[in-house]
Amino acid sequence: MLPQGLSFASRFDHVTGSAIREIFKVLGRPNMISFAGGNPSMAALPDEQCGQIAKEVLESDGKRILQYGATEGYPPFLESLIAYLQGQFPFAVSKQTVLPITGSTSGMDLLCKALLNPGDTVLVESPTFLGNMQTLRLYEANLIPIESDDGGVRLDRLEEAAKQHHPKLFYVIPNFQNPSGRTLAAERRKAIAELAAKYHFLVIEDDPYRDLRYAGQHLPTIKEYDQEGYVAYMGSFSKIISPGLRVGYLAAQEDILRKCTIGKQGTDLHTPNLNQAIVDQFLRQGLLAPHIASVLPAYREKMEKMLQELSSFPKGTKFTRPEGGLFIFVEMPEGFNATKLFNTAVERGVAYVPGTFFYPEGGHDNTLRLNFSNSTLEQVVEGMAILRKLFQETLA
Amino acid sequence: MLPQGLSFASRFDHVTGSAIREIFKVLGRPNMISFAGGNPSMAALPDEQCGQIAKEVLESDGKRILQYGATEGYPPFLESLIAYLQGQFPFAVSKQTVLPITGSTSGMDLLCKALLNPGDTVLVESPTFLGNMQTLRLYEANLIPIESDDGGVRLDRLEEAAKQHHPKLFYVIPNFQNPSGRTLAAERRKAIAELAAKYHFLVIEDDPYRDLRYAGQHLPTIKEYDQEGYVAYMGSFSKIISPGLRVGYLAAQEDILRKCTIGKQGTDLHTPNLNQAIVDQFLRQGLLAPHIASVLPAYREKMEKMLQELSSFPKGTKFTRPEGGLFIFVEMPEGFNATKLFNTAVERGVAYVPGTFFYPEGGHDNTLRLNFSNSTLEQVVEGMAILRKLFQETLA
Repeated sequence: MLPQGLSFASRFDHVTGSAIREIFKVLGRPNMISFAGGNPSMAALPDEQCGQIAKEVLESDGKRILQYGATEGYPPFLESLIAYLQGQFPFAVSKQTVLPITGSTSGMDLLCKALLNPGDTVLVESPTFLGNMQTLRLYEANLIPIESDDGGVRLDRLEEAAKQHHPKLFYVIPNFQNPSGRTLAAERRKAIAELAAKYHFLVIEDDPYRDLRYAGQHLPTIKEYDQEGYVAYMGSFSKIISPGLRVGYLAAQEDILRKCTIGKQGTDLHTPNLNQAIVDQFLRQGLLAPHIASVLPAYREKMEKMLQELSSFPKGTKFTRPEGGLFIFVEMPEGFNATKLFNTAVERGVAYVPGTFFYPEGGHDNTLRLNFSNSTLEQVVEGMAILRKLFQETLA
Repeated sequence: MLPQGLSFASRFDHVTGSAIREIFKVLGRPNMISFAGGNPSMAALPDEQCGQIAKEVLESDGKRILQYGATEGYPPFLESLIAYLQGQFPFAVSKQTVLPITGSTSGMDLLCKALLNPGDTVLVESPTFLGNMQTLRLYEANLIPIESDDGGVRLDRLEEAAKQHHPKLFYVIPNFQNPSGRTLAAERRKAIAELAAKYHFLVIEDDPYRDLRYAGQHLPTIKEYDQEGYVAYMGSFSKIISPGLRVGYLAAQEDILRKCTIGKQGTDLHTPNLNQAIVDQFLRQGLLAPHIASVLPAYREKMEKMLQELSSFPKGTKFTRPEGGLFIFVEMPEGFNATKLFNTAVERGVAYVPGTFFYPEGGHDNTLRLNFSNSTLEQVVEGMAILRKLFQETLA
């Protein structure tokens, strides 16, 4: 109980903690097969490489790394990051428009800090990533869900909402979306940048999965269609090097980035230098591309195995067929309740995330999110067999 | 210029960026002697040790370190941190009341996030640490300065302000305060805990300098007099291992800590595991105490040298005589303007921080903060000679 006379800030009135992180707690049980979470495969985490690199950077630049750093970033990393982004994307980047951050979550927090007043409207895909919905709710955003289809967010609904609600932000995950696994259609990307400029809202393009592509070609970013600064792009090394290092970046219009930097001074002062220095070496030594290439085949194989298992699920089971990323989204027939069934699934040794948590408007209890990256092929087969049986029984 | 139709959040209306970090930018000039900043000595940063430890922990527990971690902390660190705190302090600590954080700044941010609504009143020492004033201002706190004397914050003024303003928080640095170098008198500590319980405000006891004690004995914490949860204690490894690692901790009443943890989910998800693992080894292997013992003599010597140099400053120069920490605070005669003189000092090759930045109410232009830890003894002598001459000329 809170000590007498103290009270929490009203921003917590509608936030109770991330459901997905509560779900994580059951995953520690022995022999649990987890299709919950969004963790990279353990095999994909370059522990030996990171150990060697950490030792080397602390030997060669240890004093600077261990000293206070600039909020703007560890200078060698900022330099190699800009070179890397220039090689990846046609949009312009400079020290004035790129900021290293302590994981994408902190980028979301800083953009909200820079731009949102309580009650401001934020458009989000429906469904969308629940972690960033929590961040938005902590800034007391008024979340308006925008319906999506197989090509991602629907443009007609987006424009309607922009007209009606005068949003400050639109939060979108363009590639292999979390939780849906869908990729935003190429032609919608340019249109979104145009709608942002027309209706004066900032697009937050959150793109952590981009490099985990198992089929097809890279599509243009929304940001490269942005002429005037209406698109902020968030990238992350969590899915392609390590989430535990907490290193990502934010690329945004200069004044917006400056405000985020000032916000960061009062939030965590700077992203730890050692972590930036490790990622710097991946970029500088050209280790990132071969590392990604080495992890993709196993991810692809697991996804295909999970899709194959889903094809023999009960009649009426629908699911997305992602071209990359970490997630498959499953929609069961109306009346099926994946939320209620979660505890039984866990009792039988399999965890997933009920889809309802990803819908800002709630409901959709017939949906669930499956992650394949953090299981072995054998666990995919075994876990899907358990779910298939459970779902069959439930529908019977 | 911000893209048309976008606007920043009103929390930035009175925040322009940390002055001290702007000042940092001139410090890069060649041959600049910097008495600004609050950096540990380069010699005190254990780069070789950290390099070895980083490699070892990534070898022994690399997969867990590189994977997503719990917001509640990297389990081995949480364990060793609790054991360490139990050895240091008489107040009770447990997994429910201690949270690893990404530097103390993030602890301040999380406590504000958990507790402050815009316009809430926060009592602060006058002068106080400008970084955390910025954090408080980003939460639109109404800052009320409380006058301090040689024994730290004045109790009569604190109680008056508590009665008059119904504050939500009181922010205090008990040991070798930033910027004053003063230590809060032992008998005031218990009284502050009692005032908090009587008037129902939360004390944020920010104690990063505690272990940098060059004379005298440790005094009790405010928190150990706290019976009901009215004191949150923030500790940091920035001054005693490395600020670049960004590892600190927050010890608070269970419900308050839980709310901070939920806030942290949406702010940076978790403090990077590698950084927690490195500090864990310092605690676990008993490396911290000998490391601190090895750095104290040089800090003490520099402080004594600076105090000695100050004793020959122009008549009317007053300064604090700290028992530890990183700062000496100087008060020049009325009419002297250390703020205006800053640029001239920099032109002559010496930087300090004008004291005005540390006063929530502004003014006090006749004061300045000097840091001795990040200069050599020779630089202390040389830099103080330059300042002495400049101040003599100015007063003449």
